[in-house]
Amino acid sequence: MSKGFTATGVEAILKQANVPKGSFYNFFPSKEEFGLAIIDRYDAGLGEIFRPIYSDDSLPPLERVRKSFEILTARFESNDCSKGCLIGNLSLEMSDQFEKIRQRLEQSLQGWTRVLSQLLLQAQKDKTLPADLEPEMLAESLIASFQGAVLRAKVKKSSEPLQNFMYLFFDRFLTQREETE
Amino acid sequence: MSKGFTATGVEAILKQANVPKGSFYNFFPSKEEFGLAIIDRYDAGLGEIFRPIYSDDSLPPLERVRKSFEILTARFESNDCSKGCLIGNLSLEMSDQFEKIRQRLEQSLQGWTRVLSQLLLQAQKDKTLPADLEPEMLAESLIASFQGAVLRAKVKKSSEPLQNFMYLFFDRFLTQREETE
Repeated sequence: MSKGFTATGVEAILKQANVPKGSFYNFFPSKEEFGLAIIDRYDAGLGEIFRPIYSDDSLPPLERVRKSFEILTARFESNDCSKGCLIGNLSLEMSDQFEKIRQRLEQSLQGWTRVLSQLLLQAQKDKTLPADLEPEMLAESLIASFQGAVLRAKVKKSSEPLQNFMYLFFDRFLTQREETE
Repeated sequence: MSKGFTATGVEAILKQANVPKGSFYNFFPSKEEFGLAIIDRYDAGLGEIFRPIYSDDSLPPLERVRKSFEILTARFESNDCSKGCLIGNLSLEMSDQFEKIRQRLEQSLQGWTRVLSQLLLQAQKDKTLPADLEPEMLAESLIASFQGAVLRAKVKKSSEPLQNFMYLFFDRFLTQREETE
């Protein structure tokens, strides 16, 4: 579906997957329902990859957040700096047109925000993160900035914008008011 | 073209614009060439709005950068938190598929980066911005983070992520190592 969701017809999807049309509509009453299922599947897949990292007690909480973005960056590089994040792609493409998909994307992004904000809150308790930044706002902004870096990297065909995102947030902005020193 | 560029047929564009097909292909040999013309037109339009702000000597350089993002945020709000930035939308949708459009988007984003990095360099000379941040890298990252905030705001149907972007960068991250104090 490299052409984007809206531009890809159900026929083309079925041809690629070698699935007869009848079976498709048995499972998905509409292309929108199919879109929702794709988001669920993508979320579940990422959940499996990231759950062990988020809960890895051998790493400080802020390092777990950093590591999760490093892994996403490596995935992007392994795709020759193309594709990017399904959630981000659908967010820009579908939010204005498909209300159900927008709601599902919102849910997905909120879930991601919740997990990161718990780690950021722990980091504040450990005094490795400034205590006066609201963890949920910061988590949401980190994810948004990461999505923006992916966008820039897709146009540049280089992961440099993602490396810069990592450097600016994790080596500069979030460490500057460190209270551990 | 709220469905996205790839999913919108030339026929639909012509119908909306009330233009006969022959005249379209007189001007644009392909839909891709039409895409390039749209980007040029959009860039020129934004250039006209922002040139006076970027060169407004009555404001410190960093305030001009902030103001330009505030104006973009207000535009987004006036569209009911939909649409967003044409450059950002096309970046995610077209970069992997249309090499000419990717190159034109790269050129557009580099132009934007160049203008902001000149202002950031001036801000460093005025000591209102940490001197050890590379202005071009920072300008590119600011634009990327802004695009990410727009993406998040489109899903949220709220400009809150853009307000948070403004707060984090202009009231926190970029002021923390101020050397004027």
